[in-house]
Amino acid sequence: MDISELQKERYQYKPKLPNSLLGEVSSISVEKGAPTDSISDRQALKEIFKHTYGKPLIEFKSGQNDSLLAALKVAVILSGGQAPGGHNVIAGLYDGLKKGNPASMLYGYLGGPGGLLQNKTIELTKDIIDKYRNTGGFDIIGSGRTKIETEEQFATSLENAKKLGLNAIVIIGGDDSNTNAALLAEYFIDKGSSIQVIGCPKTIDGDLKNEHIETSFGFDTACKTYSELIGNIGRDANSAKKYWHFIKLMGRAASHIALECALQTQPNICIISEEVEEKKYSLKQVVEEICNSIIKRAENGEDFGLILIPEGLVEFIPEMKQLIGELNDIMSLKQKEFSKSTSLDSSISLLEKDLSTGSYALIKSLPADIASQLLMDRDPHGNVQVSRIETEKLLMEMTEIRLEELKKEGKYKGKFSSLGHFFGYEGRCAFPSNFDADYCYSLGYSAFVLIASGLTGYISSVRNLSKDANDWIAGGVPLTMMMNLEQRHGSKKPVIKKALVDLKGAPFKSFTGSREVWAVKTSYLCPGAIQYYGPANICDYGTKTLYLEQQP
Amino acid sequence: MDISELQKERYQYKPKLPNSLLGEVSSISVEKGAPTDSISDRQALKEIFKHTYGKPLIEFKSGQNDSLLAALKVAVILSGGQAPGGHNVIAGLYDGLKKGNPASMLYGYLGGPGGLLQNKTIELTKDIIDKYRNTGGFDIIGSGRTKIETEEQFATSLENAKKLGLNAIVIIGGDDSNTNAALLAEYFIDKGSSIQVIGCPKTIDGDLKNEHIETSFGFDTACKTYSELIGNIGRDANSAKKYWHFIKLMGRAASHIALECALQTQPNICIISEEVEEKKYSLKQVVEEICNSIIKRAENGEDFGLILIPEGLVEFIPEMKQLIGELNDIMSLKQKEFSKSTSLDSSISLLEKDLSTGSYALIKSLPADIASQLLMDRDPHGNVQVSRIETEKLLMEMTEIRLEELKKEGKYKGKFSSLGHFFGYEGRCAFPSNFDADYCYSLGYSAFVLIASGLTGYISSVRNLSKDANDWIAGGVPLTMMMNLEQRHGSKKPVIKKALVDLKGAPFKSFTGSREVWAVKTSYLCPGAIQYYGPANICDYGTKTLYLEQQP
Repeated sequence: MDISELQKERYQYKPKLPNSLLGEVSSISVEKGAPTDSISDRQALKEIFKHTYGKPLIEFKSGQNDSLLAALKVAVILSGGQAPGGHNVIAGLYDGLKKGNPASMLYGYLGGPGGLLQNKTIELTKDIIDKYRNTGGFDIIGSGRTKIETEEQFATSLENAKKLGLNAIVIIGGDDSNTNAALLAEYFIDKGSSIQVIGCPKTIDGDLKNEHIETSFGFDTACKTYSELIGNIGRDANSAKKYWHFIKLMGRAASHIALECALQTQPNICIISEEVEEKKYSLKQVVEEICNSIIKRAENGEDFGLILIPEGLVEFIPEMKQLIGELNDIMSLKQKEFSKSTSLDSSISLLEKDLSTGSYALIKSLPADIASQLLMDRDPHGNVQVSRIETEKLLMEMTEIRLEELKKEGKYKGKFSSLGHFFGYEGRCAFPSNFDADYCYSLGYSAFVLIASGLTGYISSVRNLSKDANDWIAGGVPLTMMMNLEQRHGSKKPVIKKALVDLKGAPFKSFTGSREVWAVKTSYLCPGAIQYYGPANICDYGTKTLYLEQQP
Repeated sequence: MDISELQKERYQYKPKLPNSLLGEVSSISVEKGAPTDSISDRQALKEIFKHTYGKPLIEFKSGQNDSLLAALKVAVILSGGQAPGGHNVIAGLYDGLKKGNPASMLYGYLGGPGGLLQNKTIELTKDIIDKYRNTGGFDIIGSGRTKIETEEQFATSLENAKKLGLNAIVIIGGDDSNTNAALLAEYFIDKGSSIQVIGCPKTIDGDLKNEHIETSFGFDTACKTYSELIGNIGRDANSAKKYWHFIKLMGRAASHIALECALQTQPNICIISEEVEEKKYSLKQVVEEICNSIIKRAENGEDFGLILIPEGLVEFIPEMKQLIGELNDIMSLKQKEFSKSTSLDSSISLLEKDLSTGSYALIKSLPADIASQLLMDRDPHGNVQVSRIETEKLLMEMTEIRLEELKKEGKYKGKFSSLGHFFGYEGRCAFPSNFDADYCYSLGYSAFVLIASGLTGYISSVRNLSKDANDWIAGGVPLTMMMNLEQRHGSKKPVIKKALVDLKGAPFKSFTGSREVWAVKTSYLCPGAIQYYGPANICDYGTKTLYLEQQP
């Protein structure tokens, strides 16, 4: 890639660090708390993590400490989807290592966890690091989605890490990747190796979050980028006054992005998957709620609007989830018959006997193109490709049909035209906001301190994030502390629990406190493009979710 | 709408004005050049514009002038699609009027030219203006697409303008709206009215441009917003290394946006409609060019890329243009038969007799969903809705099919996965860049000086735009000077000539000078979000197109 003017300028940005990490490495005191427990399934997890279960929380304070000065060899892995700030985690880790001991070395495994298995590495020198400071993307070493799962893969990982003479591996990733980090840490000790493993919390979806991980990195920048676009479209809608914009946003497993963007832009409607699931809404009920807003706004002469939809919605609508489950079962059994079917109608009739009455009625009620997506596009295992379902179009088409009915009944008198959008890739590699640049750099620097302190099976943690960076609290959290057992591919596996939108939490309550007004009155906010320079109130604050969660 | 933090901060921004407009109104000297001529069809245009043809160019200089101090009543209209900066044109006009004489009044016609016909107005007071300074959107008074065409509409316009006691109307719009402004100016004089009409050059498409109008406003902000997103996606592609992104960009009639975004982001491929037309490319040839880049990059192990596509492309591919023309003719005659057809195949067979051999072969070669869009979605006149054709998907699908053939022939060994995007609404209402904020404010201020000088049938003009705002040259250009006659709905009409991408111009040459490298090597630039504060090199420059056109 070539270098833009903004990139040149961003090289000069000095990320902020918490007070405890400022100054010399020898002034960082590493304080240990009491032993910890997993969130549930303690006995089972103790057995799986014989060596790493139950370690204490770690907090860094200003003090005196001469044990962090050894020369270390560390390798870093970027795992999973891109999130703004990954390069700064690496830069923070690098700067910490070199400050601790100029002879320390940092390597990158290329292309994600697969690079560890294939032993593809690069030494990360000052020249390379300097080219990526405060930039978006994961292109410094590339990323990948390979999971280290089999005994053979674990053995290869250890062998390759030994070959490189590593003291530690840092895995930057989401919940799955950090679960992997925990298993790898445990495996290494079990095999008598002293190689440490440290995780860093990344995901723009925001679902790697708990008491100790206040937010995963990239969430701030991604939400601000999407909110910029949503705000612009809202202003456009309010100027042109003729379209309802249906905007689908990233977030398969949780609706944090949709909720944060709603708080930032104040659309007429934002659907929260977790609420849909809890209230057991049918697809029709979701559509009905949309229509209610459209009807009321039409009565005020406002035939336009803004609707936010989380990417994963269909899997949270109980009847859709059931339909998809049934389709997966039936179609994997009858793959041959379906492959011969040439039309949607013939495919649907093939299903009549096997689908439950409710599911059959539902699929027949869906718009043809959506039913086709459910029946035609299948992954190699014969499963419905949920991520390919154009949920925004599904809702647009069903809303249009319903409004026509309501018009005939005399209950709707407006005009309805809709446009669909999907924002995902636009925000995953933006230049990190100042918040994410600072937070990531601090996470990387903390990862160094955890390594230099000889710790393993920890995730780097920086807390108190709604305060000034000075007052952030850095440390480490035992990965086992965030775990429970969940059913995966037919057996119980240790996993880091995904954080869904808390329907009793302050961000959701703030949203529900306003949404009835927003549904009718045009209250859009236009937050504009992310600003890296300029007044602090527009440059240096994190997400609304974070502030609401941490308000006294 | 509610007010975001950035909006609050942007209220404080003081747009820059050219030196000639700084200071007291009495220091603006209005200098007239020699009489002018239209670009062609002089005799015919002289007859249409009996009173307004051939007026001199106007340039403002610093000097002494006591004739601009009268109290005036002016009304402003926003016409057509939103473009960032419209509010600043109005703010500049308002500030000029009030500086000239505090008793002057500014009105807004609501909802576009339709507001003039329906006499829907609002007085634009300081309170209102201050709420919209340096903001995007046209929501201050709304916009619309009504054309003032009939004798009756012209008469109503005059009547309503008289009722309001206006001295002048300012129409902010694109080529069509400014043509309308010229006709209205002429009509008013012809009917013995002294009401003046002044135009302002708006369009994010950038096709209202000539020797005197160096760029239309909004183009800068829109291109920067799209380039932000394209750059982010490029960085994502280079990190994930698995998708070819096909990105469609606004620009029906001309490819200025695609070209500017290509200069800002350096994608692997950018299709320029004007070149496709000149070289008479077939759809196959366009696809072949895309495949060439994909093959070469696959040989380097880079199975990912970035392709920019102008929205209007299909109408510039001669064979597609012909097919669409034939379809429009046939389907309007045979509307009934087609409405009975229930499948794509039966619709296509209905066409066999009537389509030319080439067009019939072409439609049969198109992917089914695109052929459906051509045959099914029709406007009220039975015409193909070209804007609904998903050109990015057309190219994605045809590229995939072609690559499979090439793979069988052993000429392609890579993996191909593609994702489509369309950016349009995301950029039309962004907060104007500093450039657009300054340019628009200067255009509005200049419009005031033209009005106060008693001029009509002019478009506000600010030139020398690649220099510091201090050195910009403000004035007015007679609208008739930019006109020619073109065939519209079966007869010759006076219109402002649309500026297409000049294939001999510096911007296109700069692009072609690099594109062979970009096609193979990953050279993406990530310009990042528009910055309103911070170093001048990232905040205060206009488009690359502008600088290339004005380089010595």
